[in-house]
Amino acid sequence: MSKIATATKRLLVGRPFRSDRLSHTLLPKRIALPVFASDPMSSVAYAPEEILLTLSVAGLSAYAFSLWIGVVVVVVMLAVVASYRQNVRAYPSGGGDYEVATVNHGRRWGLVVASALLVDYILTVAVSISSAAANIGAVVSFVNEHKVLFAVAAIVVLAAVNLRGIRESGSAFAIPTYAFVFGILSMIIYGLVRVIVLGQDVRAESAHFEIAENSEHLAGIGFAFLVLRAFSSGSAALTGVEAISNGVPAFRKPKSKNAATTLLLMGVIAVTMFMGLLVLAHVSGAVIVEDTAHLVGAPAGYEQKTLVAQLAAAVFAGFPPAVWYIVFFTGLILVLAANTAFNGFPVLGSILAKDRFLPRQLLTRGDRLTFSNGIIFLAGFATILVIAFDAEVTRLIQLYIVGVFVSFVLSQSGMIRHWNRLLRTETDPLARRRMRRSQAINSFGLFMTAAVLIIVLITKFLLGAWIAIAAMVVIYLLMTAIRKHYDRVAEELAALDGSPTVLPSRNHAIVLVSKLHLPTMRALAYAKAMRPDVLEAVTVNVDDAETRQLAADWEAKGFKVPLKVVESPYREITRPVLDYVKRVRGDNPRDVVTVFIPEYVVGRWWEQLLHNQSALRLKGRLLFQPGVMVTSVPWQLASSAKAVRRAARTRPAAGDVRRGFIEDGAAGNGAGKDGGK
Amino acid sequence: MSKIATATKRLLVGRPFRSDRLSHTLLPKRIALPVFASDPMSSVAYAPEEILLTLSVAGLSAYAFSLWIGVVVVVVMLAVVASYRQNVRAYPSGGGDYEVATVNHGRRWGLVVASALLVDYILTVAVSISSAAANIGAVVSFVNEHKVLFAVAAIVVLAAVNLRGIRESGSAFAIPTYAFVFGILSMIIYGLVRVIVLGQDVRAESAHFEIAENSEHLAGIGFAFLVLRAFSSGSAALTGVEAISNGVPAFRKPKSKNAATTLLLMGVIAVTMFMGLLVLAHVSGAVIVEDTAHLVGAPAGYEQKTLVAQLAAAVFAGFPPAVWYIVFFTGLILVLAANTAFNGFPVLGSILAKDRFLPRQLLTRGDRLTFSNGIIFLAGFATILVIAFDAEVTRLIQLYIVGVFVSFVLSQSGMIRHWNRLLRTETDPLARRRMRRSQAINSFGLFMTAAVLIIVLITKFLLGAWIAIAAMVVIYLLMTAIRKHYDRVAEELAALDGSPTVLPSRNHAIVLVSKLHLPTMRALAYAKAMRPDVLEAVTVNVDDAETRQLAADWEAKGFKVPLKVVESPYREITRPVLDYVKRVRGDNPRDVVTVFIPEYVVGRWWEQLLHNQSALRLKGRLLFQPGVMVTSVPWQLASSAKAVRRAARTRPAAGDVRRGFIEDGAAGNGAGKDGGK
Repeated sequence: MSKIATATKRLLVGRPFRSDRLSHTLLPKRIALPVFASDPMSSVAYAPEEILLTLSVAGLSAYAFSLWIGVVVVVVMLAVVASYRQNVRAYPSGGGDYEVATVNHGRRWGLVVASALLVDYILTVAVSISSAAANIGAVVSFVNEHKVLFAVAAIVVLAAVNLRGIRESGSAFAIPTYAFVFGILSMIIYGLVRVIVLGQDVRAESAHFEIAENSEHLAGIGFAFLVLRAFSSGSAALTGVEAISNGVPAFRKPKSKNAATTLLLMGVIAVTMFMGLLVLAHVSGAVIVEDTAHLVGAPAGYEQKTLVAQLAAAVFAGFPPAVWYIVFFTGLILVLAANTAFNGFPVLGSILAKDRFLPRQLLTRGDRLTFSNGIIFLAGFATILVIAFDAEVTRLIQLYIVGVFVSFVLSQSGMIRHWNRLLRTETDPLARRRMRRSQAINSFGLFMTAAVLIIVLITKFLLGAWIAIAAMVVIYLLMTAIRKHYDRVAEELAALDGSPTVLPSRNHAIVLVSKLHLPTMRALAYAKAMRPDVLEAVTVNVDDAETRQLAADWEAKGFKVPLKVVESPYREITRPVLDYVKRVRGDNPRDVVTVFIPEYVVGRWWEQLLHNQSALRLKGRLLFQPGVMVTSVPWQLASSAKAVRRAARTRPAAGDVRRGFIEDGAAGNGAGKDGGK
Repeated sequence: MSKIATATKRLLVGRPFRSDRLSHTLLPKRIALPVFASDPMSSVAYAPEEILLTLSVAGLSAYAFSLWIGVVVVVVMLAVVASYRQNVRAYPSGGGDYEVATVNHGRRWGLVVASALLVDYILTVAVSISSAAANIGAVVSFVNEHKVLFAVAAIVVLAAVNLRGIRESGSAFAIPTYAFVFGILSMIIYGLVRVIVLGQDVRAESAHFEIAENSEHLAGIGFAFLVLRAFSSGSAALTGVEAISNGVPAFRKPKSKNAATTLLLMGVIAVTMFMGLLVLAHVSGAVIVEDTAHLVGAPAGYEQKTLVAQLAAAVFAGFPPAVWYIVFFTGLILVLAANTAFNGFPVLGSILAKDRFLPRQLLTRGDRLTFSNGIIFLAGFATILVIAFDAEVTRLIQLYIVGVFVSFVLSQSGMIRHWNRLLRTETDPLARRRMRRSQAINSFGLFMTAAVLIIVLITKFLLGAWIAIAAMVVIYLLMTAIRKHYDRVAEELAALDGSPTVLPSRNHAIVLVSKLHLPTMRALAYAKAMRPDVLEAVTVNVDDAETRQLAADWEAKGFKVPLKVVESPYREITRPVLDYVKRVRGDNPRDVVTVFIPEYVVGRWWEQLLHNQSALRLKGRLLFQPGVMVTSVPWQLASSAKAVRRAARTRPAAGDVRRGFIEDGAAGNGAGKDGGK
């Protein structure tokens, strides 16, 4: 917090009042890596496979291109990693691509990035869970037979866990992520050692299959186009790289440097696994096709396993535990990657809410209701996608990559502008050289990602990318409309000079009475303490006998406050009170009418159903009357104490860890404390 | 309204304030008959058929008993009608069986009646709609093939119409009901004229079928038992007779006399149609079986039509429009009968709510939310029943009759006690003789209905009546629990002497500020006008830059009210404010804290989503703090005017007509006006 702000505040406040029970716990690199890298690393579980699968349309001979395609993907990957290392240094505030695009290209392009990222979150869930189903299905045949069911169940469980609030911790990410990396790298090394050093024959179960002629299909699209499409699918390996740029504030100091180092580490590991799997697929001769009907030599009823499962079975032949290990941790990291979307949504949502493109409620961490709506929204659309595309990774991936690369391209081009702007004022030659170097890196990143985006658009548009683009357009328009509404309201509210607020001349207080019980007595006492100009009690006659009794009791008590009876032949409460208040106010338009409503407060949800509904509705309706204030005078019943205790427990919210929020005392992992910003 | 009450009120109020835009429009007999009789009259569409169907198990020869069973049902029907004529005279207030049982047998038995009636409403919907599907299915084969779908769709439409609020009018009931009565009576007369006078051969399409031997089934239950069971099913003709006793207040004066006359008229018409159909079935030789597999001589794929449809086809052979007319109006009156349940539920619900056995919100007509829950509840359970029993009237009817007769028996026995009580004090010999006569009628009614109840329990218990009984028990226990809760709360609130309410010593006012806009200015002005002992403004620091700007603006305005800044490092609003308020109150426990919340009010539902959620939540949480009042200071945005206009339109509520509520000016049918009670 800046010094000036603190000084201004001290002036007005005296001592500041702090309410935080949460504290910032910043992440060391070894924990930050798994927290942010589960998404990009998990994509090696399907990206290499998708390359082979797409190439299979042109027959086995086309597989020769897989390694070259892999190399290009690696180059793009490294270019993107290098570019984002510039981003995290230049924008350490955690706004990520949305901030970079907004600052450098203006609000509209920022919104395009935001739309792309929101679509991306939905697809991350759908693709990751579908891939998890396929991988686990390779060893558990029940899952294989009910992929869609498994995927939908997994999404529901993830949503439920995030709705309930789970305490994310670094170790929850660290163990599976490191176990996955260890497993995949071990498999690659052991496999290559067996082949190259020991000269053993490591053959995938599908190695002896041939692929049937499928030339008519190929003729329709052309071989070059097919290679480009395979490259597009392989580019799925890059999804999630941008996540770290949203999480810089959660790193330990020096934040930017640590984030950049972690990014590089992640890039190197991901690239190694990705290339390693392609090489291993090559030497083991694994055959992956889009449609097993085109396989020649496969037994009847052959179920094609995922590439990772086939490679594990080939490398660790005769030692099933190692196979199960690989498959289990592959499935687990994919589920973690899906969970990333559930965590990322509220983070991006709160940034967008701050700029009033989404409902303001998303801004505050405490709003569980809105927050829950976001999770349900995400889970709902992911479920629709999974069902619509039969939980087939190959079909879902056609939609996936557009959003990511739109965001990459706008972010990198934004960075080029960023450096141009800085260069305009910078005179120190050393600094200028550094900036020029950064700009060159971002330019290379822009060139690579723009090329990929064009290739993706050309090769994938009709296969499904149009759906993602259409969704982006809808979200963009929705966010624009929300912003327009907020602006209009702000304008209407800000007319401070036009209509000076005058002090009301008199205060006419009305205490609503239904029975003569403690809440009423308290409301009456409070209303008296306000010393209004006029004070009267009003009751609605819903039942003649009860009203008569109330009037008699009222007289007996000698309150010196008149009790007016409002007739309601149809046993309504709201309308008679509204009409009465309107009449009172109508007589003296400069008066203000204060309506005191005695309420009793209960603690259990089912008690809420039995009470206070009419008070709530009445309050809502009274607010529409000009010149009327509504004062609730609560009476706490014994059971309300339960609700207070319940509310005192802070429940964790999804995305806390990546924003650096951890409950006091729950900060494990030996992470150092850092009291505040 | 009693004179004493009015006098008491005048004393306190001056002139009464009336808010009613609805007026009572009382029903003449010719309109009251169709309004209340659609349910009991519609049951002739299935009751005669069920008698034949049950007897068919014993073969065609058993059909001879159908006329005798019909005669007994008619006798019971007339006994019940005569009994209820005593009820409406003795209890003209519209409480019906629930009131009679409560007053004479005590609360517990009243609750039993209420449970029975609630179960009955659900079954009325399920049975009537299923029968409508069967009747319409007789001419529309699509409906016949998709009976369950049709029934569920019909329930959904009925629920939607009642949720939306439809203006019931007498004519909406009158036309279909009179058309149905006219059609059925014409069919009976024309059919009998053709057979008896003209000597023509009127044969049903099923007349030449035989029923296959089914003796092993019969042996299991015994013939006498079967006849009793057929009688039980035939007693379904009596359902709905009690409806008029709930609607006496809606009749024109002399209410009781008119209601009694209408009841008699309804009984005579229903009995005539019921017996006429049985006779016509006898002369036309119609064969109805439970399972068409037992039919001998039927063509392959024979679809059994309803009795009414078969009779219409036989009587009006060669003139299809008359057949369509009968089937159409039979279907329509059955749908109207189902609608009766949707109207009756809120009426009974409000009576039960008045006695605090159901949530109090059901008491007030205006509470659309709770009211809607009731409709959804009713439609939901009816749908479950229709699906579970395949929309088969024969299976549903086994559950139906228990509730009705439980209610009959308790009501009639209550009436006997009623007369005993009156006889104890009455000395006038003429009046005593009249009471004795009424008591004798009720005693006969009790005898008949008790006998039927026992027969129904014996013959139907295992066939499904146990489900209805179990549901009654559950509802009974639920209502008891609700009452217990309300009693406990009332006790807790009523401790008036134990803790005298003292006037608070000081008023500490807090104005919550988020921005410096018109709502804030108004809240500040209002708070000043309250002349509190301490007045301060409080803002939550969610964003440093915004807070700094606010503090600067505040100082510039020179408000003379200090602005305190409450820190919220995690961008929460509720908790920091709660903690601050708790601290203020903690310093001076005899103080009262008034929190002024500026709110802006919008008019469209989607605007509600974008605003005020945090204010609403904050208000809800503040109410749990002892010694805190919450005052909403509204600012009406331009769009809020729309909501005011929308709310000004009174939407009709289900059950209005039978309670005598009709919107001013919408009272058609030439019904006379009667300004109030």
